[in-house]
Amino acid sequence: MEVARTIQSIRKLVKAARAKGKTIGFVPTMGALHIGHVSLIEAAVQQTDFVVVSIFVNPTQFGPTEDFEEYPRPFDDDLEICRKKGVDVVFAPAPKEIYPGENLTWVNVEKLTEPLCGQFRPGHFRGVTTVCAKLFNIVTPDVAFFGQKDAQQAIVIKRMVTDLNMPLEIVICPTIREPDGLAVSSRNQYLTRQQRKDATLIYKSIQKCREMIEAGVTESREIISWMREILNQIPSAQIEYISIVDAETLESIDQVAGKVLVAVAVKIGSTRLIDNILVDSTKK
Amino acid sequence: MEVARTIQSIRKLVKAARAKGKTIGFVPTMGALHIGHVSLIEAAVQQTDFVVVSIFVNPTQFGPTEDFEEYPRPFDDDLEICRKKGVDVVFAPAPKEIYPGENLTWVNVEKLTEPLCGQFRPGHFRGVTTVCAKLFNIVTPDVAFFGQKDAQQAIVIKRMVTDLNMPLEIVICPTIREPDGLAVSSRNQYLTRQQRKDATLIYKSIQKCREMIEAGVTESREIISWMREILNQIPSAQIEYISIVDAETLESIDQVAGKVLVAVAVKIGSTRLIDNILVDSTKK
Repeated sequence: MEVARTIQSIRKLVKAARAKGKTIGFVPTMGALHIGHVSLIEAAVQQTDFVVVSIFVNPTQFGPTEDFEEYPRPFDDDLEICRKKGVDVVFAPAPKEIYPGENLTWVNVEKLTEPLCGQFRPGHFRGVTTVCAKLFNIVTPDVAFFGQKDAQQAIVIKRMVTDLNMPLEIVICPTIREPDGLAVSSRNQYLTRQQRKDATLIYKSIQKCREMIEAGVTESREIISWMREILNQIPSAQIEYISIVDAETLESIDQVAGKVLVAVAVKIGSTRLIDNILVDSTKK
Repeated sequence: MEVARTIQSIRKLVKAARAKGKTIGFVPTMGALHIGHVSLIEAAVQQTDFVVVSIFVNPTQFGPTEDFEEYPRPFDDDLEICRKKGVDVVFAPAPKEIYPGENLTWVNVEKLTEPLCGQFRPGHFRGVTTVCAKLFNIVTPDVAFFGQKDAQQAIVIKRMVTDLNMPLEIVICPTIREPDGLAVSSRNQYLTRQQRKDATLIYKSIQKCREMIEAGVTESREIISWMREILNQIPSAQIEYISIVDAETLESIDQVAGKVLVAVAVKIGSTRLIDNILVDSTKK
């Protein structure tokens, strides 16, 4: 496995692989790799010939009061995971390699970035789409892999790729959960033992929602109120949002119909956790 | 010469050329081809192996009161010019091929798009950068060719390519002028005979500026006042701007120093014309 630190070196490695007729798979990450990332890497190894994993904690997607500095960076462990999983190249650029000077050019996806996390993290998705556009242009993959765990991000990235005719395919892989249901996240390690226990209520609230929809409840307000009840059992929880939205447009819906995205963001102490499920209400 | 109408067909043609080891040159145009475009095509033919010219009047770069509907579309003449000049493919998509639905994703270059034409054509550069990003992703050229005539556009596109790490090179070709100095533009054909005659004063005003800088005048205000005097000789002229700016940042400068861009936008009747020159004031 190679480790590329510069744009020039990753481009050279990808070019050589492509010259051999290989398809290029890409898993963009911020490192602190866990079994969620591993599932993306496995999908990439299975579906493409040459797998690039980027490890880059992107400053432009963090707000000024967010955890950019504290974000875990266990680089050697990350490399070990990539090596074991059959990754061909890890692209791990320094911040100056990606942002050598003032960045004036931004890619912005309107509307889809406004609700849900967009309300609470202004500028976040603009940072995500811009760095993904940059990484896609650097790595030039045939397929890039993202997790359903970050549901809004997945929808926003797919829309960017479609709207800008980017020559790659986006594959969204299922959310990976701990045995007790908690969605795996690099930020779970911020939790105390008690908070970690309480955090299972996030998925419980989402499961409650699925049950209610499957039982025929269609009133979003009623469902959300039950979910809130569950989340309020977490002593230190601050609920950012509990939303039932159209799975394509992300517009809030009063009456559940068709495919819906149920999404939750909760701060437990100072740790912000998100989770979601897609529910097809027509398949009751 | 082939004419591709769909994204799928142009991609297929480019892929086949690249598989033969050919480099791809790209000249994006809105059609109504003139000797300015021809100079770009000639540069592309000279510098690359396989030349794609796009002809697409991009709706998103026109303001609501601008000339999108009236913009000339002499398609058969354009094809004839391309054929004669050795173009390999003309990519001429229908609007629905480029914008199949609501476009939510925009590429925006901050700061550089604010002065000069940016002040008078809100949204124009966002339309230009977005459609160029789309076309670059569709055609995937190694080199794309633009004219110095649209100086701000050239700087904005170059910045977008650098900031987003787009894997292509941008070549800027010199402004092509009529024998009397008027910068060649598709919009010159809107002019009446008298307006066409008056329009030569635009380049005269710019030449005056160069002469003054070369004679050692450094006060922008003084130079601009002389230029305004010349342009005011055009009876139906409405001057949008006469600007002396830093050639890289496009920031207005009071004292001429280093490389400067002298840029003018004038409406003659309802026809908006622009022109510019780069002056290196250190080479007096």
